[in-house]
Amino acid sequence: MLIVMQPNATRPQIDAVCARISELGGTPRECTVADGLVIAVCGGVEPIGLQRLGRLEGVAQCLPVARSCKLVDRAARPEGTVVTVRGWPIGDGGLALIAGPCAVESKDQIFRVAEFVSECGVRFLRGGAYKPRSSPYAFQGLKEQGLRLLEAVGREFDLRIVTEVKDVQTLSAVAQAADVLQVGARNMQNFALLEAVGRLRKPVLLKRGMGATLNELYMAAEYVLSRGNLEVVLCERGIRTFETATRYTLDLSAVVLMKHDTHLPVVADPSHAVGIAWAVPPLVRAAVVAGADGVMVEVHPDPSRALSDGQQALTFDEFASLARDVRSLADWRARPADPRVAPGADHRCPEALAAR
Amino acid sequence: MLIVMQPNATRPQIDAVCARISELGGTPRECTVADGLVIAVCGGVEPIGLQRLGRLEGVAQCLPVARSCKLVDRAARPEGTVVTVRGWPIGDGGLALIAGPCAVESKDQIFRVAEFVSECGVRFLRGGAYKPRSSPYAFQGLKEQGLRLLEAVGREFDLRIVTEVKDVQTLSAVAQAADVLQVGARNMQNFALLEAVGRLRKPVLLKRGMGATLNELYMAAEYVLSRGNLEVVLCERGIRTFETATRYTLDLSAVVLMKHDTHLPVVADPSHAVGIAWAVPPLVRAAVVAGADGVMVEVHPDPSRALSDGQQALTFDEFASLARDVRSLADWRARPADPRVAPGADHRCPEALAAR
Amino acid sequence: MLIVMQPNATRPQIDAVCARISELGGTPRECTVADGLVIAVCGGVEPIGLQRLGRLEGVAQCLPVARSCKLVDRAARPEGTVVTVRGWPIGDGGLALIAGPCAVESKDQIFRVAEFVSECGVRFLRGGAYKPRSSPYAFQGLKEQGLRLLEAVGREFDLRIVTEVKDVQTLSAVAQAADVLQVGARNMQNFALLEAVGRLRKPVLLKRGMGATLNELYMAAEYVLSRGNLEVVLCERGIRTFETATRYTLDLSAVVLMKHDTHLPVVADPSHAVGIAWAVPPLVRAAVVAGADGVMVEVHPDPSRALSDGQQALTFDEFASLARDVRSLADWRARPADPRVAPGADHRCPEALAAR
Amino acid sequence: MLIVMQPNATRPQIDAVCARISELGGTPRECTVADGLVIAVCGGVEPIGLQRLGRLEGVAQCLPVARSCKLVDRAARPEGTVVTVRGWPIGDGGLALIAGPCAVESKDQIFRVAEFVSECGVRFLRGGAYKPRSSPYAFQGLKEQGLRLLEAVGREFDLRIVTEVKDVQTLSAVAQAADVLQVGARNMQNFALLEAVGRLRKPVLLKRGMGATLNELYMAAEYVLSRGNLEVVLCERGIRTFETATRYTLDLSAVVLMKHDTHLPVVADPSHAVGIAWAVPPLVRAAVVAGADGVMVEVHPDPSRALSDGQQALTFDEFASLARDVRSLADWRARPADPRVAPGADHRCPEALAAR
Repeated sequence: MLIVMQPNATRPQIDAVCARISELGGTPRECTVADGLVIAVCGGVEPIGLQRLGRLEGVAQCLPVARSCKLVDRAARPEGTVVTVRGWPIGDGGLALIAGPCAVESKDQIFRVAEFVSECGVRFLRGGAYKPRSSPYAFQGLKEQGLRLLEAVGREFDLRIVTEVKDVQTLSAVAQAADVLQVGARNMQNFALLEAVGRLRKPVLLKRGMGATLNELYMAAEYVLSRGNLEVVLCERGIRTFETATRYTLDLSAVVLMKHDTHLPVVADPSHAVGIAWAVPPLVRAAVVAGADGVMVEVHPDPSRALSDGQQALTFDEFASLARDVRSLADWRARPADPRVAPGADHRCPEALAAR
Repeated sequence: MLIVMQPNATRPQIDAVCARISELGGTPRECTVADGLVIAVCGGVEPIGLQRLGRLEGVAQCLPVARSCKLVDRAARPEGTVVTVRGWPIGDGGLALIAGPCAVESKDQIFRVAEFVSECGVRFLRGGAYKPRSSPYAFQGLKEQGLRLLEAVGREFDLRIVTEVKDVQTLSAVAQAADVLQVGARNMQNFALLEAVGRLRKPVLLKRGMGATLNELYMAAEYVLSRGNLEVVLCERGIRTFETATRYTLDLSAVVLMKHDTHLPVVADPSHAVGIAWAVPPLVRAAVVAGADGVMVEVHPDPSRALSDGQQALTFDEFASLARDVRSLADWRARPADPRVAPGADHRCPEALAAR
Repeated sequence: MLIVMQPNATRPQIDAVCARISELGGTPRECTVADGLVIAVCGGVEPIGLQRLGRLEGVAQCLPVARSCKLVDRAARPEGTVVTVRGWPIGDGGLALIAGPCAVESKDQIFRVAEFVSECGVRFLRGGAYKPRSSPYAFQGLKEQGLRLLEAVGREFDLRIVTEVKDVQTLSAVAQAADVLQVGARNMQNFALLEAVGRLRKPVLLKRGMGATLNELYMAAEYVLSRGNLEVVLCERGIRTFETATRYTLDLSAVVLMKHDTHLPVVADPSHAVGIAWAVPPLVRAAVVAGADGVMVEVHPDPSRALSDGQQALTFDEFASLARDVRSLADWRARPADPRVAPGADHRCPEALAAR
Repeated sequence: MLIVMQPNATRPQIDAVCARISELGGTPRECTVADGLVIAVCGGVEPIGLQRLGRLEGVAQCLPVARSCKLVDRAARPEGTVVTVRGWPIGDGGLALIAGPCAVESKDQIFRVAEFVSECGVRFLRGGAYKPRSSPYAFQGLKEQGLRLLEAVGREFDLRIVTEVKDVQTLSAVAQAADVLQVGARNMQNFALLEAVGRLRKPVLLKRGMGATLNELYMAAEYVLSRGNLEVVLCERGIRTFETATRYTLDLSAVVLMKHDTHLPVVADPSHAVGIAWAVPPLVRAAVVAGADGVMVEVHPDPSRALSDGQQALTFDEFASLARDVRSLADWRARPADPRVAPGADHRCPEALAAR
């Protein structure tokens, strides 16, 4: 933590800040930098809470120096975490394709989707049984019955079930049917739920809130890890911006940063982000080459009759074509590294050198 | 609901949309407007869910015509709702000043604040016992002990207690101590919690999520009202924008729109929005004359030692001065209407006319 | 400037950063703070451009410590700047009411508005002759003819003319007719225009861009001041956010911060921000008590027939009533300070003490 | 245009709206839809400007039905526009790689970059001679001298020059050196500049403003096309959002929508958007498979010594590796369509069918 003083801060004000740092167990060190005076907080003091020193007179800013999410930080596990879901990995360098309808609507619907996506090579089926909906009057899911259907199709087609848990009350029921517990964007800072899934030993797919910074997402994941559940997958699903042509704005740079900042696997959900079916395939392809460990795609036998989010669901034809693209790009991504690219190489483009 | 067709939509596509509307129980009516073809959906069909018609070929957009939150809509109670909290009203045209620390930290702290604000004429004490915090390592509140302290100061100083309920698990404990249950911004779409407070008969202060549109806030309130609890107060507390000079961006136009769109009382919380103590008083004053039914202000005996949000808490001196301003502006607001301003009056400025 | 090193930065990496700082003329000083290593850049090096040190290995962040807009900074003129427009001040503690139509549409229209607002006590008339419009097909203003009309009404009713300059080409023409040159939000970073108005000696009203941070606005003003024109008025007119219920989001906290951070007068334009006529008056009132030195309000004899922005223009009746409110609140704001509020006073609410 | 009436609108209010529509030359048609009354505006009336009908009593909303940018709309040229720059196409299905430094800094620097990128197969060199900078104190480019250097390297290495034009004053000088005139994000709504480049017959690369919606970008392009210059390339370069971990937020869904909504070629500029060198390559790859016609990448011989934007520039090694990826993905994208994917095909995944 660094305390930046105002340009006109007085000596007694500076001394008061130093005294307070000492009182909290730290050691203050003054640095006259080119554009002002900074007091560095050295020693064993906890950075959280130093923000309030901003209320002392003469203080301009309190700048944290490091992230406070120690468990999710890449440094905690530089080699990266692989979350294995009944034998199928997420985060091992391959690409996990998670597909299915927004909501389980009927036995016929979920069986048709499950059969189709499984034939396309998909191993992870998504589908909501408990649906959190903005309106109290919208379809809220088939609930218990939806969970039973998910269990059935999971068995029938050897699929791993990714389904949302809406609240602590229904957690144990959902956890029984789910292979991966999805915590939705609206629940990203539902701390009771985060702590509860943190006490389980089951993979969690944690979606970024639509108004949440990456740092807040990391902190939310830290809640889960700090309770002992280390199998967390992060998910970018679009953020709120001023642009209204799309439902949300898919932030693919977030995929790149999450991979860099944390050791957790990262999944992208372009369907919810863009909210327009024809725009989903190019964004799924983009997520793959941006480095996502997995992509979530909504598929429905008849999107124009879907009970929720039909506008963004792909038809079977559209999905089959996309699944081939995804596989092909995952292969591209996994191609052996080019031996000609070595650090410290001559600053000529290799092709050009080869041509000489 | 209006279905806007693409400029090049074909007759079979148009017919297919009309057929689907009929299938859903509505009556389609085609209108060739100046800039394209629109199909109006008439009759008794439920607007929710028509969005998926966007997946039919030739459809450009599905435009909802009305809000779907019938219970919170101003039309449901044009005269407005007054929420009365053990004798003290919010929404009656007066100004409810809600003040206190971010969190209850100790008996001494909460008693000092309660005594002081009560002497300043405050009737509503805010203070968190259960604190939802972004970081799992930050101070999470005194919990049960905090509730006991709130009950004690409430009795001692005849204050109404406004305190946050973080989750369904602790709801009954919090509801016993609270006069007003605060649902925080991060929980605005925690639907299990909304339904649970909806089943109680106790006032709820519902904060807008930092990434939530007004329409989503109205829907969240609709969850509470639709469960039978009509005593909801809406609260603007700042939204996420690109500006980083303030913690959030206080959206005072939201206060004006909430009063217009709904019949519920509206409160503003500039402390959390701006996150800088010296910027709080002018924004509190602004909220009063913008028409808020109440304002929330954080006060602490020693902000630079507060366990949370010290950077935005006012000292006692700062608060006393602000409380006087608030009273004075509330009086200004309640002054008798100027009899010279009559609808349809001559288009001259009254003063000017009087001067002639 | 502070260079924050990555937690695992090596000694050679740290040395390389220090060497580079020395090479640029600064003195590096290492500080081991509680959560990492920081290198403070001391001495006479220019902070701008140190950002690129982020490309050296082992560097996590480059944190600027101070604002680089020296001329607009409050510290450059702690007592504040008063911009005087042919005898009428903006920034002297009073309230400048700037009113008029979005665009000059006809002689009849502008004379009717000018006469009316002048009778309401207004001294500053706004009105566009050159209108920058998002669409090339929208009404672009009466141009030269509009300027002539503005000059005529200015003389007739002794009004100061605030009108927008769209580009360098028309600057000299506009400058002849205008008392205050408005630089619009879309031109906030049109640096050629900023430099050109900076070379004139005529007040400039500089609007914040809808996607611009406060710091960028300050830098834009710095362009004008650094060319020698010190008479700049800053204007908040709403920013782009995810909320679509209003046209833009009026950021009144920006008014408070601009007054704090700079010495320039600050004006708010709620009409353009909210874009809904009935929401304008409460937000104008709010801006006054938040500390704005002036407010801009759109008025039109018949808003539903306005050639631009009719949806947000007030009728004459609405404006007359608002003008009274503004005067009344400006008086409230200018009331003598309460002698009972003294720094370091006893921590009791004065009213309460008086009552004992 | 559709006029949505308030639920409680009276008959005289409805009649007044209809009368006004007739007065403007349109034909009103009333539709009682499921959730309210809508008046469709039929016939030859101009949609722009109907917004002001919102000021008539009883009106809830004025909804435009179609975009008003007729020239850039995909419908105007369904097959798409190919912009050919001295023999090299953008928008023909291939991938245009535009690379170079942020600014031209010296003869040595620009020659080294030009030689290197040209050896990597690049045909479009970017580099600024006139640099619009937020701060008046930052490096503003080599200006005239920079243009001379760009001409020289263009000739030497047979590169097409993409360089920014900052204002109308320097347009003719820049146009002489440039093969493609870049209009920067801050100038996207500098209408004088748009009109001026619209009168030339030289390709224009128009960057989206950081606070601009897609619709506003289309309107800005419409300004250029409506002056007769049809060779416009649109460019996504990141938008302002609440996320601060990246400089801007790259909106790749915008690339997909621009291709869908307009017939113009689309380029993405991940360097400026993300502002972090290591995050650039994955986002460039993503842009390619999302369907961009080109990508812009900043390259510098020594980024940590760059005079502007060094933090986001790639080194030569990094760029060479990325250029190979781009070529490889462009080939992937151009692979022949899979003959097995036919519309109306059996709803089985082709691979699965083949396997039976």
